[in-house]
Amino acid sequence: MMAKLLRSRVASANEPGCDFPIQNLPYGVFSTEGSAPRCGVAIGDSILDLAACEAQGLVDGAGTFAQPQLNGFIALGRPKWDAVRAALSRLLAEDATHELPLVSMADATLHLPIKVNEFTDFYASKNHAFNVGVLFRGPDNALPPQWTHMPIGYNGRASSVVVSGTPIRRPMGQIKGENGPEWTACRRLDLELELGAIVGGDSTMGERLTVEEAEALIFGYVLLNDWSARDIQAWEYQPLGPFQSKALGTTISPWIVTQAALEPFRSAGAERLNPLLPYLKEDRPGFYDLDIGWTMNGQTMARTNYNVMYYSSAQQLAHHTESGCPMRVGDLIGSGTISGPRREETGALLEMTQAGKEPVTVNGESRTFIHDGDEIGLFAHADGEGYRIGFGPCTGRILPART
Amino acid sequence: MMAKLLRSRVASANEPGCDFPIQNLPYGVFSTEGSAPRCGVAIGDSILDLAACEAQGLVDGAGTFAQPQLNGFIALGRPKWDAVRAALSRLLAEDATHELPLVSMADATLHLPIKVNEFTDFYASKNHAFNVGVLFRGPDNALPPQWTHMPIGYNGRASSVVVSGTPIRRPMGQIKGENGPEWTACRRLDLELELGAIVGGDSTMGERLTVEEAEALIFGYVLLNDWSARDIQAWEYQPLGPFQSKALGTTISPWIVTQAALEPFRSAGAERLNPLLPYLKEDRPGFYDLDIGWTMNGQTMARTNYNVMYYSSAQQLAHHTESGCPMRVGDLIGSGTISGPRREETGALLEMTQAGKEPVTVNGESRTFIHDGDEIGLFAHADGEGYRIGFGPCTGRILPART
Repeated sequence: MMAKLLRSRVASANEPGCDFPIQNLPYGVFSTEGSAPRCGVAIGDSILDLAACEAQGLVDGAGTFAQPQLNGFIALGRPKWDAVRAALSRLLAEDATHELPLVSMADATLHLPIKVNEFTDFYASKNHAFNVGVLFRGPDNALPPQWTHMPIGYNGRASSVVVSGTPIRRPMGQIKGENGPEWTACRRLDLELELGAIVGGDSTMGERLTVEEAEALIFGYVLLNDWSARDIQAWEYQPLGPFQSKALGTTISPWIVTQAALEPFRSAGAERLNPLLPYLKEDRPGFYDLDIGWTMNGQTMARTNYNVMYYSSAQQLAHHTESGCPMRVGDLIGSGTISGPRREETGALLEMTQAGKEPVTVNGESRTFIHDGDEIGLFAHADGEGYRIGFGPCTGRILPART
Repeated sequence: MMAKLLRSRVASANEPGCDFPIQNLPYGVFSTEGSAPRCGVAIGDSILDLAACEAQGLVDGAGTFAQPQLNGFIALGRPKWDAVRAALSRLLAEDATHELPLVSMADATLHLPIKVNEFTDFYASKNHAFNVGVLFRGPDNALPPQWTHMPIGYNGRASSVVVSGTPIRRPMGQIKGENGPEWTACRRLDLELELGAIVGGDSTMGERLTVEEAEALIFGYVLLNDWSARDIQAWEYQPLGPFQSKALGTTISPWIVTQAALEPFRSAGAERLNPLLPYLKEDRPGFYDLDIGWTMNGQTMARTNYNVMYYSSAQQLAHHTESGCPMRVGDLIGSGTISGPRREETGALLEMTQAGKEPVTVNGESRTFIHDGDEIGLFAHADGEGYRIGFGPCTGRILPART
């Protein structure tokens, strides 16, 4: 028997294909002309102003909703997350009547939803790891030997994480030339299609999180485009990993989709190639059945599913604390590029064009890597019975290099 | 003709070999029983309470000295740094008479001097890079091909940076076993002798710093021990670099020695093996003539000089912004392990013991790597005519693993 579909008093939230129905309720930070950034929740084509709601006594965020990022609210912990979600669900229900401080999304500027504390990026799609490994190191050393035993990750740069819509400047950098190193504008600018998990609590230095504890610490997810300069990367990345090739910018979507909204879409991930050590074992499926893909200048280039991934965010976070490394509210954990096995499922141009050898056509033009002026957009949604949990847009356009 | 040696009214500051004479004036954060952490300056065996000084109208820190970290003061910029240094030099001079809020260092607890925003670690000693390269990859691939062309670095974890004296827990982790991966307490726990540069200003995303601009952005330096789990590192570090092997803890010294104090000791670094690209060229010597070394359980194990390094902190910082990556006040930039060419000049046990093959003797006991209960201390000082610019202690003792 199917439960009656929950509908919202905000009519646009009930339209088929709307990213932000009442089942979603993602958190973000917005401002309107002449007013300061504050916390809000997306509903249909509108934003519910949480700071105003709290001022009216409609919801209790312990005073954090007037802050210009969600870190304060997130730090309040899961019981508060649950209580606020329940309150918002009542306030926005079809039969609710209380006057609400709604703002049209068209009139709002969206900001980075959190102060990103630290940013870690993983490498958890076997298809991507193998495809990129072949291109960088050849087929014999494509998949690193530890890849099926641990989530491989590296620390990225938090200061260059920006919100959707922020232009990204093509980087200058050092690359390998025929007669020694060359100083040049990047010639192989790429995207990486990822999901980013937002850490919602602190852990203690010297202690480890189990996978279950790690999952309980995740507040929610955003789309994440880890812009990558492949020519700079190839020259710099051995032996200490990618550095400036990944520091030009990382774009995230403005709305944090909560674990609670994604819960009905829980899914198993890729098939295990070998048993995992106990500290990485998951008792229940750790992924989501989530369509995810990307566009270039409006044309859909690839789509796949988050459940092609091999390690979940909870496993990545547990591994991150293996050594006793403490996690903090506002840490951002990139899933790694999400690529399915087929070309039209790849989450990076490096894979899709075989490092530039097989161009793609975009609106009639040929591309191997990203040109100045090109706009990349990411999208993701989980489709339920009669509603969709969407992430909204995550876009960035490339500005010419400052030579 | 030699200038008359500046002396302090704090007698202990004038003792030969004192780390904190009036020429030094390093900044830190301290508390005493029942009082909150606040900013201070080390002078001899005492701390000048800067919050109290400001309350008495003796010095102007724009209200930042009452904060529990120096980020606020540092963000005020170089003209303010210079003005406060000049004021402190007058207040602490031998002939000054104003009553001063001095606290005995013996009665104080020293705290992390800054909120570490992000932590980046480099790899700038050719001796270390070559020695470690031989051990990890063999002599043919020891020095990466780009090493003489760019400062190789990686993003470390800021949340695990702790102040001198904080115990460090031996990490658990995944290592390569004979029949697949093994979950174990680290068996090859090591130190890394480094200097850490504190970034003193913000840079703009999408713009680059010249080496000169980068140097102007550095507030000062601390000692830095980048504890390293070599067995975990060997299994995890390809292709994305060290991760959990470096996240167990990074110890820094509590006193930030300013650029101004080190200026008289400016020195050239290691000889260049090839010309650098213009963006990395330095117009003047970028290093310091600074004795630096480490102890184990009180026994001096190695000493060398910071000027063996190949890339300066200013060059590292300039390279860090190459891609447009923005820097922030409180970013910490590790120099990389400082090793001279000889065994008694090596800044890590990995090099000193040839990955455990050649044990060393410490107080009559044999060591290859660090045992539980062992204490590692770093030290550094620049010796002028009749005074010493010292860094004070930077120690950490190892606790047994939580299995």
